[in-house]
Amino acid sequence: MGVVTFLSDYGYADDFVGVCHGVIARLAPEARVIDVAHGIPRHSVRAGAVTLRNALPYMPAGVHLAVVDPEVGAERRAVAVRCAEDGRLLVGPDNGVLALAAERFGGPVEAMDVGRSPWRLEPVSATFHGRDIFAPIAARLAAGEALAEAGEPCDPATLARLELPRPEAGDGVLTAHVVAIDRFGNAMLDATHADLDGSGIRLGRPLELAVGPRRFTAWYAVTFADVRPGEILVYEDAYRTLAVAVNRGDAARMLGLADDVELRIAAA
Amino acid sequence: MGVVTFLSDYGYADDFVGVCHGVIARLAPEARVIDVAHGIPRHSVRAGAVTLRNALPYMPAGVHLAVVDPEVGAERRAVAVRCAEDGRLLVGPDNGVLALAAERFGGPVEAMDVGRSPWRLEPVSATFHGRDIFAPIAARLAAGEALAEAGEPCDPATLARLELPRPEAGDGVLTAHVVAIDRFGNAMLDATHADLDGSGIRLGRPLELAVGPRRFTAWYAVTFADVRPGEILVYEDAYRTLAVAVNRGDAARMLGLADDVELRIAAA
Amino acid sequence: MGVVTFLSDYGYADDFVGVCHGVIARLAPEARVIDVAHGIPRHSVRAGAVTLRNALPYMPAGVHLAVVDPEVGAERRAVAVRCAEDGRLLVGPDNGVLALAAERFGGPVEAMDVGRSPWRLEPVSATFHGRDIFAPIAARLAAGEALAEAGEPCDPATLARLELPRPEAGDGVLTAHVVAIDRFGNAMLDATHADLDGSGIRLGRPLELAVGPRRFTAWYAVTFADVRPGEILVYEDAYRTLAVAVNRGDAARMLGLADDVELRIAAA
Repeated sequence: MGVVTFLSDYGYADDFVGVCHGVIARLAPEARVIDVAHGIPRHSVRAGAVTLRNALPYMPAGVHLAVVDPEVGAERRAVAVRCAEDGRLLVGPDNGVLALAAERFGGPVEAMDVGRSPWRLEPVSATFHGRDIFAPIAARLAAGEALAEAGEPCDPATLARLELPRPEAGDGVLTAHVVAIDRFGNAMLDATHADLDGSGIRLGRPLELAVGPRRFTAWYAVTFADVRPGEILVYEDAYRTLAVAVNRGDAARMLGLADDVELRIAAA
Repeated sequence: MGVVTFLSDYGYADDFVGVCHGVIARLAPEARVIDVAHGIPRHSVRAGAVTLRNALPYMPAGVHLAVVDPEVGAERRAVAVRCAEDGRLLVGPDNGVLALAAERFGGPVEAMDVGRSPWRLEPVSATFHGRDIFAPIAARLAAGEALAEAGEPCDPATLARLELPRPEAGDGVLTAHVVAIDRFGNAMLDATHADLDGSGIRLGRPLELAVGPRRFTAWYAVTFADVRPGEILVYEDAYRTLAVAVNRGDAARMLGLADDVELRIAAA
Repeated sequence: MGVVTFLSDYGYADDFVGVCHGVIARLAPEARVIDVAHGIPRHSVRAGAVTLRNALPYMPAGVHLAVVDPEVGAERRAVAVRCAEDGRLLVGPDNGVLALAAERFGGPVEAMDVGRSPWRLEPVSATFHGRDIFAPIAARLAAGEALAEAGEPCDPATLARLELPRPEAGDGVLTAHVVAIDRFGNAMLDATHADLDGSGIRLGRPLELAVGPRRFTAWYAVTFADVRPGEILVYEDAYRTLAVAVNRGDAARMLGLADDVELRIAAA
């Protein structure tokens, strides 16, 4: 039985997600569909790409559908991509949303432009390619049809890439950036535990967080409960990247964090 | 394996949807349940009916459960209805929420009043007929039990209907109305591309949109990316009806749109 | 085929729920996963416990995963518990979230501390035990592995309990408290129909509701439609507890209700 995982920015208020499930169920009645997340912030290709990369290792190998598609109906390609590892197949717009997951599984080794796939639902709408292109292609791949039949081959080297911000360390200060914020207001950074080497920061010790001109006292901690309610912690999150949180609070709101905001972290 | 699709205004915050899934799983363990949408605006029978009509053609034929039920526990009937086409079965309150989907599949040809169905879960609550009446009936039908056993026959001609607003064309102006608004603020109208015949409006050309005393410049476009961020477009949406959107914005908020609001559309 | 039901406060905005589904699908590909609810208010152990207790009787017997876990990574135990009735297995943090459901099914008869279970996903994160501990344990139990293998035995008598407020009746006044509020603003109380005995309150008759110094007229009714839009009703809800609602309105907002708020109910 094939597996289709499905990530999008469609949200749950409307029938977008449900209709894609219906399309898949018609074409691949035996496939199991697992929703990864549909609350990706609207049009945030980067948040979609980061979430997909983080989540896929926990998903059974299969067809991985990801639709965050601000340029739907315009020039961007629609693609299906085979990764080097696990035989994982990624399906979605070629705008970077698949890029980090492809890298995570060894890089793309085969790619098809599926914009004019024979498997499309006709007539193809201009605004809902999730339903008319991506879901049917994911479904047929999950049902065992061959990637080579999905469209026109294209060079994997031409697939869209995605650049994330990078942290900088020096003079005992780690300059990091917000990559994503979850619904609890926890902010994932572009840095890892290893980036703190040489900063003098130690687990269980206080540190100073600077966001623009504002300075905050925080703790380098293992988990929320290591600090008091309302206190700020920097910690290694569940995906082994550094993150900022407030125990029983909302760090994004308290510190004024948003995507790409710079934080300077130093021992207190 | 039977399919049950499920649409409601229950939302995802509480356990209403989950409990109905549980009831179905107990009575029809082999049935596959596909959630169409549960974010229908509370008590909006029309939004539920429009969404159901639009989504069902993309769903496998089966039992289609739809619960938007402001009069739960009061006079309205509970019904299960067989459509002329595809053998599709609709289950829900007889308040119009099933009407457009029934029409879309050739009209109702058999109907049962299931308010006192032997398949109800006893004791039947006064406020959660989704759990106590509609889900068990959908489950047993999906498990292969006969519609004729579900309750008391009633005349399909007596089922509740639903009237939508209608557009009017004249003097180069199309007067249309908002039928539904999605979570992106895109507004679906009661008009189609054909209603623009004779208006002088052409794809790729500007047009004037009037909402009450306010006038806006918009474009008749194929997709969002055809206009600049922040610009308004009128387009044929994924269900082939005319809609109003703002590229990377929220048309409902920008234009002050809501259900039944009148728009006057003319060539600029 | 095993069943896993899943309740949490993870919400649907992020990938927390989806990743747990992925973990379960990898370890128990044949298991059916039913989402009970993921919109439990963040960190509200009591709301999770009440929802789980109410919903489980409508779910197929199986493994019941519940994660509302404000103390994740700290001292609280992680447990898997067998109930006396139906062979139901509960998996989650030992903070009370499982307590009411365990009681509902005859009490816990076998319990394992799974904090260091051999079934954990390594490395175990400090903040996402849903993924790393609870989901894999639920999955393996659903796949048929033995509870005794899940961790270290612990005494069921030491499991965390949960105390709910209790109503008091006297002098024709029932003093009740809010236990939970749903997304429609309906407030579930800690009282039942039987607690109104001797109060002189009768179905279909008005009553007086006092919340702090504010007094409201309400009706003791069977269902919403029994009162006019905007009017307040006290009714037996779908779980047979007393609740307060406003027909087509939001009782929590109108009456200023929140968890534990006291209401005094008397015949008008």
